[in-house]
Amino acid sequence: MKQTLIHDDRLRGQLDFLIEIDRLKQVLRRAFLPGTDRNENTAEHSWHLAVAVLVLAEYAAEPIDLARVVRMALIHDIVEIDAGDTFFFDAVGALDKADREQLAAARLFGLLPPDQAADFRAAWDEFEHRQTPEARFASALDRFMPLVHNYLTEGRAWRLNGVRPEQVLAMTERIDPGAPAIAAAARAILADAVAAGYFDTAPEAAHAP
Amino acid sequence: MKQTLIHDDRLRGQLDFLIEIDRLKQVLRRAFLPGTDRNENTAEHSWHLAVAVLVLAEYAAEPIDLARVVRMALIHDIVEIDAGDTFFFDAVGALDKADREQLAAARLFGLLPPDQAADFRAAWDEFEHRQTPEARFASALDRFMPLVHNYLTEGRAWRLNGVRPEQVLAMTERIDPGAPAIAAAARAILADAVAAGYFDTAPEAAHAP
Repeated sequence: MKQTLIHDDRLRGQLDFLIEIDRLKQVLRRAFLPGTDRNENTAEHSWHLAVAVLVLAEYAAEPIDLARVVRMALIHDIVEIDAGDTFFFDAVGALDKADREQLAAARLFGLLPPDQAADFRAAWDEFEHRQTPEARFASALDRFMPLVHNYLTEGRAWRLNGVRPEQVLAMTERIDPGAPAIAAAARAILADAVAAGYFDTAPEAAHAP
Repeated sequence: MKQTLIHDDRLRGQLDFLIEIDRLKQVLRRAFLPGTDRNENTAEHSWHLAVAVLVLAEYAAEPIDLARVVRMALIHDIVEIDAGDTFFFDAVGALDKADREQLAAARLFGLLPPDQAADFRAAWDEFEHRQTPEARFASALDRFMPLVHNYLTEGRAWRLNGVRPEQVLAMTERIDPGAPAIAAAARAILADAVAAGYFDTAPEAAHAP
């Protein structure tokens, strides 16, 4: 916003941040939306995750401050405006993901007035580090929701990206620390997906003794 | 979700709700996204509004419970899955908007377990009635954000829908009860939009004395 239009520096910075993050609506994820032929974008994913936090709060492994979890859910992926979405199962993209996202966080949250920039940055860091009950729960649901999308689209993103059932199984184990009951549901859904043939690659057979 | 897959009725209802509201990502609004050639959808709008609540909380006209406002922002438009988006300046659509949305609220929130259904429904009713400081603030930002989109797209949705500056000016007056400083910013942006020629229809000239 022009300085001649919004004179107050604080409000202008806040509006500039809100305008800049509009671009998160253009960042595409690997997941496909059920009933459509398009990928999910990160803004609508963030909305869905925040509502999931409200609905599934009772399954958190430990007592949580719900407002803090919702806030984390809303901003956890804003860095993707600069850094892009890195697929959970992309080992190469993972190599420099942290560096790209640190730069993005500095630039994007830096549009806010300093006190809010520090506040939002702290919430994003908390999510990334997964060291609090709130971050573990937010992160658990962030992993669970794409599984639901893949299940409802008959494994479309799994197949397109050559994901194997063992990889998804290992992912569900990272849901346990935040929301064990949701991790159990995830494994039930995964087992059904395997049985229904939603993966191109069958699970590796156990070695004969 | 199949009962044979998720045995627990409560969790299954919660997941069914989360799966059903995925469709909000397919409900299109009149607003265009800056830098794109597509309309905004209601899910990404709800995300943007919730973040705006976090960022602009200090401008609320009265003390607010921020968590309650964020929650309202996240669910305020879920009814559009059944009822569709009614343009703010659509007088005909407004006639049966309330009836359509009441039915939608009953069906959609009714997917949740009864305690949560009542809870979400109460939050939605609170937003609709605008009788609390929280609802007035959420509603104020809900009106402000489309103005920003229209400004950044040089009035695209205003022109496509024959909206006049007087209508937008009247809308800004409905921002005042929730966030007077934001209403003032809205009027400054509107004045700049008029000066820049973003409306097809000029404001009606004052009658000569």
